[in-house]
Amino acid sequence: MSNTKVLPLLEPDTESGPESVAPCCPPLTERPFTAEEAELTARMFKALGDPVRLRLFSAVASHAGGEACVCDISDVGVSQPTVSHHLKKLKEAGLLTSERRGTWVYYSVEPSALASMGRLLTSE
Amino acid sequence: MSNTKVLPLLEPDTESGPESVAPCCPPLTERPFTAEEAELTARMFKALGDPVRLRLFSAVASHAGGEACVCDISDVGVSQPTVSHHLKKLKEAGLLTSERRGTWVYYSVEPSALASMGRLLTSE
Repeated sequence: MSNTKVLPLLEPDTESGPESVAPCCPPLTERPFTAEEAELTARMFKALGDPVRLRLFSAVASHAGGEACVCDISDVGVSQPTVSHHLKKLKEAGLLTSERRGTWVYYSVEPSALASMGRLLTSE
Repeated sequence: MSNTKVLPLLEPDTESGPESVAPCCPPLTERPFTAEEAELTARMFKALGDPVRLRLFSAVASHAGGEACVCDISDVGVSQPTVSHHLKKLKEAGLLTSERRGTWVYYSVEPSALASMGRLLTSE
């Protein structure tokens, strides 16, 4: 009682890192989000809140076999370093995963992230 | 033919303004988005890509009766002018609608926007 907490505590389930954002939160229509829930979830929305990132995400998500290398999806009107920068942002937000095979890095959609975002937007 | 267009033309269905973003686009997993689709859609994601806006959106979306006045949802740790600013951004992105009744402005979720975002994140 004498040891008053003045800083908000993180949710216990954030200890596995920023990429495990998927099973965070109820639908946005269910109840007001807490500050912690909003922080976790806003990251994913922000990552898709840029037209170039959205095109890259869509290109990966719709690519044959469910994965794409940078060589497959660079046709979005920006330089390849910029493409790589945006792919990194999508990865940091937990929306994509990547694997290096030989010369190229292959990107896939993190299915749990897509499901989690879909769930947030379910209105029931 | 002599009058060459050098600027990209807007999609015909954007003529009713930025608030009619809802029926824009297929699921992100269906095919790579065009630049125009990405521009339209990124606006909605960007609007939800801020923790305070996400809390406000969630507070409106989950409020009894499906609408909330600023007086109901200002408990997000920022000043009321900041709340109003963020609500305006959500409205500009087509996610909220508003109506003034007496002293207060009441906000509601635009159901077609929520459905549209949900559809974008459907993986099929």
